[in-house]
Amino acid sequence: MVYIGIDLGGTNIAVGVVTEEGQIIGTCSTKTLSERPYQEIVRDMVTCSMNALKNAGKTVEEVKAIGVGIPGVADQKTGFVIFCTNLGWRNIPLKDEIQKYIDRPVYIDNDATVAGFAESVAGVSKNCQSSVFITLGTGVGAGIVINGKPWSGAHGVGSELGHMTLVADGVPCTCGNDGCVERYTSATAIIRMAKQHCQAYPESEILRRCGGDPEKINAKTVIDCAKMGDKVATQVFDRYARYLAMTINNITAFLDPEMIVLGGGVSHAGQFLLDAVEEKLPRFLMYKTLPSPKITLAQLGNEAGIIGAALLGRD
Amino acid sequence: MVYIGIDLGGTNIAVGVVTEEGQIIGTCSTKTLSERPYQEIVRDMVTCSMNALKNAGKTVEEVKAIGVGIPGVADQKTGFVIFCTNLGWRNIPLKDEIQKYIDRPVYIDNDATVAGFAESVAGVSKNCQSSVFITLGTGVGAGIVINGKPWSGAHGVGSELGHMTLVADGVPCTCGNDGCVERYTSATAIIRMAKQHCQAYPESEILRRCGGDPEKINAKTVIDCAKMGDKVATQVFDRYARYLAMTINNITAFLDPEMIVLGGGVSHAGQFLLDAVEEKLPRFLMYKTLPSPKITLAQLGNEAGIIGAALLGRD
Repeated sequence: MVYIGIDLGGTNIAVGVVTEEGQIIGTCSTKTLSERPYQEIVRDMVTCSMNALKNAGKTVEEVKAIGVGIPGVADQKTGFVIFCTNLGWRNIPLKDEIQKYIDRPVYIDNDATVAGFAESVAGVSKNCQSSVFITLGTGVGAGIVINGKPWSGAHGVGSELGHMTLVADGVPCTCGNDGCVERYTSATAIIRMAKQHCQAYPESEILRRCGGDPEKINAKTVIDCAKMGDKVATQVFDRYARYLAMTINNITAFLDPEMIVLGGGVSHAGQFLLDAVEEKLPRFLMYKTLPSPKITLAQLGNEAGIIGAALLGRD
Repeated sequence: MVYIGIDLGGTNIAVGVVTEEGQIIGTCSTKTLSERPYQEIVRDMVTCSMNALKNAGKTVEEVKAIGVGIPGVADQKTGFVIFCTNLGWRNIPLKDEIQKYIDRPVYIDNDATVAGFAESVAGVSKNCQSSVFITLGTGVGAGIVINGKPWSGAHGVGSELGHMTLVADGVPCTCGNDGCVERYTSATAIIRMAKQHCQAYPESEILRRCGGDPEKINAKTVIDCAKMGDKVATQVFDRYARYLAMTINNITAFLDPEMIVLGGGVSHAGQFLLDAVEEKLPRFLMYKTLPSPKITLAQLGNEAGIIGAALLGRD
């Protein structure tokens, strides 16, 4: 038997046929064109699924379950998408709509949650019963796995690590709160801090690489400059890593998973990021001499969304 | 069959015989006298257990398991107490030592964790599969229950809600960090804030009740004065409730349990506390229109420690 995993994003629909072990054996993708009625988007999800099955040499009879990762909140009992900003969806009967075409069990969960679940099934946290996966991108999300199962909360509104308060009354956040984790640990945070530092130190290599235009600063440029030792970039990256270490300590103090996995764009900084976090973390840990979660880099990259969604229906 | 629950504190050892349903049917307690060798303390725990059994009209043959709640960190696999500040314990073979006297399975967990578990078995969160219990006392602790089971982390260092950062670089904490939740949401925090406010407004009813001596301020006085409408006390309580609402929002954003239960000394403020938190919480919630955890007051009081410890071995 195989599983269909659908990574439903604001831009693309990516579908994969996935084995019991978490291997992708056939894929298909298309544009989401999110302004369309949801019925049309679902029809394309189904068409992609059929094509992915064909590419995998499988038939619909061999499909055990379908899973969908959405950039929003789902009700796992009813199969409704309750809330999905990027798609403008509210209370969409996604499961029922998919089952009009393919009569298989359908599971829906948050995209960061399924990516974290994928890492725990087929990636870096494979042998961990508990893990927290962090996506460090434009925003910050999390995928929580406890006792081997994904956990996105009793009402589906959990795992929103990016919108926990880290700095009470701090930098205003897009969510309406102030001082959220996302404002200090996302790629966006690196850019904001870099702009601030470059205003004070315009001689920075960061600005030179952006042709002197602070609007062209991105996280990769800052990290690249920090890697080569530019003083301003190092200051920015240090500040960033310190907030990330605080956040990792918060996850440790509260949930203490076996492993904390860093994913998303900023995690491409690789060992450089890990080293910076590992250096700053002990300062914050409460039990400095006791074992605590292992910090690692994600392994599955973009495929995590498909693999995790697919395997929601495995057990 | 019955269970023995031992609430091991820095001051008292409280033991209860508990039924399958979480009812205490016999108790016994004694002073901990924590400076003694651990073997003596364990002997007293066993003597108390035997007395509690006698008081319940039960024999040791009817005991299915023994549970111990400790103010520290335990290794559930080995039955060692890894770390327990109040008792000065480090790497104590508590399970083995108890089993020298009573040959029954022994389970050990953090005291806030077992109190939260008790509420989820026999208290206010009885029908909840997931809950977070918060003790608002001198310090702040938490008891996490997920899928009906207590969760204190993969390494036993989790559920330390009080030592998550809420205000990066905020008020220095006893743990060595700055800006911990405990510094803003404990009874101690109420006292600190009240002292600050009373310095600026010495005409406060709070100071009058303390004979003008700010060192005599306690949380109950502040709450009592706030209840009767004293302006300064109301300001202090408002600040406190705001930080508590932020903390509750953080638990919601990350774990989203079915219920968040308020316990510990400050929770004796009762509905007055609940009302203040419920008023401030919506401002912080990310999904304001979606269902979120129910906030309630703990029901079991001091008995929670015994009941929760006892039932660690039930399933």
